[in-house]
Amino acid sequence: MTGLPSHVRIVEVGPRDGLQNEKATVPTAVKVDLIDRLGEAGLATIEAGAFVSPRWVPQMADTAEVLAAVRRRPGTSYPVLVPNLKGLDLALTTGSVEELAVFGAASESFSRKNINCSIAESLERFRPVCERALAEGLRVRGYVSCVLGCPYEGEVTPEAVLDMASALLEIGCYEISLGDTIGVGTPGKAGRLIDRLATTVPRDRLAVHFHDTYGQALANIHAALREGIAVVDSSVAGLGGCPYAAGASGNVATEDVLYMLEGLGIETGVDLKRVAAVGSFISDALGRSNGSRTGRALSGHP
Amino acid sequence: MTGLPSHVRIVEVGPRDGLQNEKATVPTAVKVDLIDRLGEAGLATIEAGAFVSPRWVPQMADTAEVLAAVRRRPGTSYPVLVPNLKGLDLALTTGSVEELAVFGAASESFSRKNINCSIAESLERFRPVCERALAEGLRVRGYVSCVLGCPYEGEVTPEAVLDMASALLEIGCYEISLGDTIGVGTPGKAGRLIDRLATTVPRDRLAVHFHDTYGQALANIHAALREGIAVVDSSVAGLGGCPYAAGASGNVATEDVLYMLEGLGIETGVDLKRVAAVGSFISDALGRSNGSRTGRALSGHP
Repeated sequence: MTGLPSHVRIVEVGPRDGLQNEKATVPTAVKVDLIDRLGEAGLATIEAGAFVSPRWVPQMADTAEVLAAVRRRPGTSYPVLVPNLKGLDLALTTGSVEELAVFGAASESFSRKNINCSIAESLERFRPVCERALAEGLRVRGYVSCVLGCPYEGEVTPEAVLDMASALLEIGCYEISLGDTIGVGTPGKAGRLIDRLATTVPRDRLAVHFHDTYGQALANIHAALREGIAVVDSSVAGLGGCPYAAGASGNVATEDVLYMLEGLGIETGVDLKRVAAVGSFISDALGRSNGSRTGRALSGHP
Repeated sequence: MTGLPSHVRIVEVGPRDGLQNEKATVPTAVKVDLIDRLGEAGLATIEAGAFVSPRWVPQMADTAEVLAAVRRRPGTSYPVLVPNLKGLDLALTTGSVEELAVFGAASESFSRKNINCSIAESLERFRPVCERALAEGLRVRGYVSCVLGCPYEGEVTPEAVLDMASALLEIGCYEISLGDTIGVGTPGKAGRLIDRLATTVPRDRLAVHFHDTYGQALANIHAALREGIAVVDSSVAGLGGCPYAAGASGNVATEDVLYMLEGLGIETGVDLKRVAAVGSFISDALGRSNGSRTGRALSGHP
């Protein structure tokens, strides 16, 4: 265990991971507005979309239009998810993508159900994506899902996570985001996972991506911070979730994470009140209740 | 900091702290059913009601009837809140009360607004209550509210909390429940508070009572566990809240606490699935959405 980090980088995943499972099509202008407002609130990494088959994820079909319309802020990164070389081609065509993400799993069953191939096959698919992206001067971030449990297999060993994380780093990812996709982790397990990974992977190459399905995300993030992790994925208003897991109620809310970090005296460069206002905006736009407790408290709508 | 406790006692406050601010009158039979079901789920301490003025808290007007109808389980305690000697008289009249709670504050302004007297006056009110209760063979638990912040004064010092906790122990309380009434605490502050109190008060005389207004309760509870605290107040389905604090969305949910404790390998003697079923029952009975994320996940209603 190390001390708490003095600064944490928030990776805002609301516009991609948060919106991708919304059934009703979110207008392109709303997505653009969402991303611009998040940037104005100080978020320096905003996952902006995905170049995936519109047959599988219709909500992301307008990613090129979104990227073209966003008011780019200096120092702000707008990564997009890319599953394969075809997606990379589309991303490169925009001429504005500087960072990609690839999405793998620590569980064989989840890999097959979610991206329709084995873990080994997913790595063979990601390898040329990374090679070409790096050659084009892009950065690639690697997601590993199911790091604290799988909806099909149950337990996932830290060794399986370590294998996948190491493989993604080896093919060129600069950072690994550890996803508790179904939100089943608790803080002891989360801390021990980081501790185990850190025997091989430098802590500053790791990020955490926790879901609040069972309300455990902040406790898990705090445990990860205590293990020296300084990059946290979160989603404004708690948007999003995993469609393959019953009861998966969504990503941890950016507002709740920021509230905790401020209380811990950790700098983020992000303005909580402005993010809370963005959370109210997007909740209203989607016609759903705000999934952030802090957002609800700050907006006076408990 | 100490290691995690091997066993935690849950103090279920739903039937009193949870229901007291419900506007619509909850039928006595529903309260009795709620308490009986919580007992069957293994909860050994269930706050069952309050002998307070029905003018101030009309929802608790039937506490004597509730106590008379509950199916008492051996080894289970059914404490009631008592604000003064008049309340104690009423409690003693039932012939079935074995444990009381008195409710004080670490903030002068909150004390005046909530119980209409200064902190010193509240102690003078509680002293004869404790004396007589102890003489009658009852146990008395002391609540201290606003331990991590006050809606009127903002910051509350650990010294103010320590003074009130020490005074309540001195007049005969066997345990002090530390309430973050408006849910503003974060885990660093929560841990430091316990650390400060433990220089004077034995850790096994302390309990934590956290609200999830900003989503911080589980992270704070985990911090308290790491400081050796082994008694946690919680409310089934997250019932309740503080009517004097804007956005105070309620007590931490028993189901969410149990999920975390199970994940940490800490024994409670409580059956999470049965508590989750009770949470669904009472949420349905009150016609409101379930405030527990774990409860929603386990019931398949995210």
